[in-house]
Amino acid sequence: MYLMDRYKDTKEMDISQIKSPTDIKGRSMEELAQICADMRKALIAKLSSVGGHVGPNLGFLEATVALHYVFDAPADKIVFDVSHQSYVHKMLTGRMEAFVDPEKYNDVTGYTNPRESEYDLFSIGHTSTSVSLATGLAKARDLQGLSHNVVAVIGDGSLSGGEAFEDLDFGAVAGTNFIVVVNNNQMSIAPNEGALYHNLALLRDTKGTAQSNYFRTLGYDYLYVDDGNDLESLIAAFRKVRDCEGPVVMHVNTEKGMGLPVAQEHKEAFHYHAPFDPYTGASKSADAELDYTDIFIRYMLSKIKADKSVVALTAGVPGAVGFTPDVRMEAGQQFVDVGIAEEQAVAMASGLAKAGCRPVVAEPATFIQRAYDQLAQDVSINRQPVTVVTFYGGVWGMTDETHLGFFDVPMIANIPGILFLMPTCAGEYIAMLDWAVGQTVTPVVIRTPSGAVVNRSGDFSVDYNTVGYEIVREGHDVAIIAAGDFLQLGLDAADRLVWMGINPTVINPRYVSGLDTSSLDKLRGYRCVITLEDNAIDGGIGQKIAAYLGDAPVKVHVLGLPKRFVNRYDPDELLKSSGLTPEAIAGIALASSGVDAV
Amino acid sequence: MYLMDRYKDTKEMDISQIKSPTDIKGRSMEELAQICADMRKALIAKLSSVGGHVGPNLGFLEATVALHYVFDAPADKIVFDVSHQSYVHKMLTGRMEAFVDPEKYNDVTGYTNPRESEYDLFSIGHTSTSVSLATGLAKARDLQGLSHNVVAVIGDGSLSGGEAFEDLDFGAVAGTNFIVVVNNNQMSIAPNEGALYHNLALLRDTKGTAQSNYFRTLGYDYLYVDDGNDLESLIAAFRKVRDCEGPVVMHVNTEKGMGLPVAQEHKEAFHYHAPFDPYTGASKSADAELDYTDIFIRYMLSKIKADKSVVALTAGVPGAVGFTPDVRMEAGQQFVDVGIAEEQAVAMASGLAKAGCRPVVAEPATFIQRAYDQLAQDVSINRQPVTVVTFYGGVWGMTDETHLGFFDVPMIANIPGILFLMPTCAGEYIAMLDWAVGQTVTPVVIRTPSGAVVNRSGDFSVDYNTVGYEIVREGHDVAIIAAGDFLQLGLDAADRLVWMGINPTVINPRYVSGLDTSSLDKLRGYRCVITLEDNAIDGGIGQKIAAYLGDAPVKVHVLGLPKRFVNRYDPDELLKSSGLTPEAIAGIALASSGVDAV
Repeated sequence: MYLMDRYKDTKEMDISQIKSPTDIKGRSMEELAQICADMRKALIAKLSSVGGHVGPNLGFLEATVALHYVFDAPADKIVFDVSHQSYVHKMLTGRMEAFVDPEKYNDVTGYTNPRESEYDLFSIGHTSTSVSLATGLAKARDLQGLSHNVVAVIGDGSLSGGEAFEDLDFGAVAGTNFIVVVNNNQMSIAPNEGALYHNLALLRDTKGTAQSNYFRTLGYDYLYVDDGNDLESLIAAFRKVRDCEGPVVMHVNTEKGMGLPVAQEHKEAFHYHAPFDPYTGASKSADAELDYTDIFIRYMLSKIKADKSVVALTAGVPGAVGFTPDVRMEAGQQFVDVGIAEEQAVAMASGLAKAGCRPVVAEPATFIQRAYDQLAQDVSINRQPVTVVTFYGGVWGMTDETHLGFFDVPMIANIPGILFLMPTCAGEYIAMLDWAVGQTVTPVVIRTPSGAVVNRSGDFSVDYNTVGYEIVREGHDVAIIAAGDFLQLGLDAADRLVWMGINPTVINPRYVSGLDTSSLDKLRGYRCVITLEDNAIDGGIGQKIAAYLGDAPVKVHVLGLPKRFVNRYDPDELLKSSGLTPEAIAGIALASSGVDAV
Repeated sequence: MYLMDRYKDTKEMDISQIKSPTDIKGRSMEELAQICADMRKALIAKLSSVGGHVGPNLGFLEATVALHYVFDAPADKIVFDVSHQSYVHKMLTGRMEAFVDPEKYNDVTGYTNPRESEYDLFSIGHTSTSVSLATGLAKARDLQGLSHNVVAVIGDGSLSGGEAFEDLDFGAVAGTNFIVVVNNNQMSIAPNEGALYHNLALLRDTKGTAQSNYFRTLGYDYLYVDDGNDLESLIAAFRKVRDCEGPVVMHVNTEKGMGLPVAQEHKEAFHYHAPFDPYTGASKSADAELDYTDIFIRYMLSKIKADKSVVALTAGVPGAVGFTPDVRMEAGQQFVDVGIAEEQAVAMASGLAKAGCRPVVAEPATFIQRAYDQLAQDVSINRQPVTVVTFYGGVWGMTDETHLGFFDVPMIANIPGILFLMPTCAGEYIAMLDWAVGQTVTPVVIRTPSGAVVNRSGDFSVDYNTVGYEIVREGHDVAIIAAGDFLQLGLDAADRLVWMGINPTVINPRYVSGLDTSSLDKLRGYRCVITLEDNAIDGGIGQKIAAYLGDAPVKVHVLGLPKRFVNRYDPDELLKSSGLTPEAIAGIALASSGVDAV
């Protein structure tokens, strides 16, 4: 029922025999159609079982088969943008088992990765870079006197990112073979935002014949494929652009979620989906408990209703920060999705604040990296009270090496003039949000805690711009300074120490962009200070504290996540190997105290 | 002779009486023309005397007068991109004295600055943000039910920056008054790069009538002004777009350097120029001595000739990193200017390296900020041996708050997998460059030292990926670890200490992205370690060292530049107030040693 009619009559063939693109070359259209049907079945079986990027891969299935049928990778160079649409590419390039054998589902990552295969050129996870990377490959080819094809595959959602303009603009003037495949499935992760999408719609409506053509304006030859899920059209088109001698855009109109009705109907929900029933689309896991994103959205909606000047912004990932379609409708004009365009989101927020609005930019920690310069220049130098709320930060965030949330603190907390707050519990999170939105003194970044929601009593209604550290537990000789969602870890370590006759002070620093020197001065006579932070140690608060106490006799131990791109790690193992367990922390405190560890 | 004929007959009037835009409203065309002529004279007198952005301001003079003549700032909101073209705006908005009275030339900064005037909305210095900021102002206006005009003024050079696409793309769909003035002077800082400029040329050639129109493709209404230095055309055009009810682009064709023949002839050299003779264009200062940029270019040219795989890249600022037109010609196909598009430059370099080339990205420290994400993702996660060479870093770099070079170390040295080298002298700089270009193991960033060239003997031919710290001077009890161009400061402090009976160890750490723990372990028994770094302390090497030695009895003192956006500072004063003088450093060492400071 969920497979498309067009494939229902094809007979079974063993796709597990496909070891490389060579195995599909020279096949008849019927055979290719059967391969597509079988791969689609396998994909749906895997995705519904373990979750993943559903819509992008089902939509670009035929195009990927056609791409490998016509081009000769790895001699021809194919770069996938974001690369969450590279599952079919992986199936065709020696990794079919990871899609047909449930035991091996986890053998491949969700993005291209050169450590997996020579067919994968780059490890990618952020948008809009494929054409840039391809311009480098093409320039190198030209300098080396070689003649292979260079192909960048980019989705329409990625086109709103500024780098996609920079690279299209530059790639158009190289004057040699350069092929950009635009996978136009009419969606970003959420609906597309921005004027360019009107032009893409015009091009689709006119079957590529409209005079007003973004790509032609930039100097590209242009080829339109109206049915981007039709193998024959795709193969014919790829043959036309293969070995071209200048820059060409092949604009392919695909259907996101093709072949799986629930994904075709609910494109935003099925861009990425956790394990689901392929017939009904229902999630297999039970409804999750209230999480911090729910708390954020409840707060934002109530604030938006109470205050016309509050504006929530995101850059193309509303669902990831809780702004699902119903929430967006409720927020109305006070919600802005700028599309995948983080620089625009942050600088626009500065303009909003300048004009008296109260902007809140909600963005995953990994993507805010695109806006370093805007945070520094447009927001901080201009002292605009913009609030940025980051998500999926720290060890319990996203685990792909391209999506880590360890580096938001080192990146942002060392920019002058930005107050970086680390809430430790639900009450403090709401209080910090409310304080940040209410004040007009300073830019603020708030790291949404990851992991389970913690409830903790305390007086959180303070001025976070002037308040010092919170002494959560008063003790002596040993201090544990534990930021954000690591406070619980610090308290657990403290409990252990109490059993061992040590009564440590436990401190919630509240912010990581500077120091409460008067609180720290009280620790100068301590035996030992241990800092805990849920981010890479380098550039974090622990090193700042160690430097401040560098001339005092107290020993300082800085603990946190490693400065390393780890890939698909297990959070518990990473915590353990980083010494971030109550036992290990207590052990350090004991050793400093001259008491033997138990 | 250097003033244009068209203005030669206008009689003198006292422009110093202009205190606000009101003073030019209602004037006749003749009076306005005279005001323009007098302001041009004053500008040329000031610029030739103290230097500044020559071309952009002379070219946009009439347009700025027309802008303030038609619109009602500060009620109408005008945002200048980069804002190095805002001198005339400053003259018209209460700051004329700083342009007509040589005693007051330094009373204003070179960029818009809200602390100077309510007519300046933002402190800006990086490109491509004006339209983003303006979208925020427009959205706030709409939410507040107000009706003033919002105008973004952006140069064609800034249009190649990705954010300029993000914001134009977003700004086009707001559906309310939104005016983008494109100042098309046919140049970036250097000649424009990228396909968009072909479209702008087509629009100029067809007087704005070409069917292929970048701005119309994005949905903008479009108005072309062929003579962007003609007051009447400009005023008529601004009147047409004023109070428009949707997004409009007014494309103004101006002449960079208008009215000053040497600047019109040598547009790249006169984008920004130090004091010069207005008749001949000759610099007033004597030829500078050999500097580090010269050393860089000599090295690059010899390497480019010796090795076909070496490719130098810059993002729109070739002259600032030594790639003057003659050098570019010599480098030929092995030099790439991507235009103002830092993301493209860095990601393209990753593609070049992947394909076996040896890319070297040369970029001012302040602008590399735009490419944080590309450094992390496209370069480091992919382990591509890209070399990035930064310029104008540290205290002797650029002194405008928007162009500081203090933050390259905290930003980049905390990204995993990038080796950040800090050369201390000419020999080491060349050795590091040559090593970086020759190896294929790791991404490398090299900070070009600022200040006078230092020559120092030593063996610099080492493997910088594995080598530890250089002991420049062997001593005991007190260690001074001095990075990059602060090594001389450390040696000077050491000399003072020797007079006082202390024999300090002086260490050149060579790199600031990690620690040589075996060298540091030898200091555990020292009385005192002092770290010196020519960058903001927060996130720097001193804090890392303090943390590493946090459990040792040795006292650690971390010295460096403040984590603060200082504006137009005096380097000597900033060094002094930061404790970065030989006397102050020696004083710390003495105090730690129990010897009284002298």
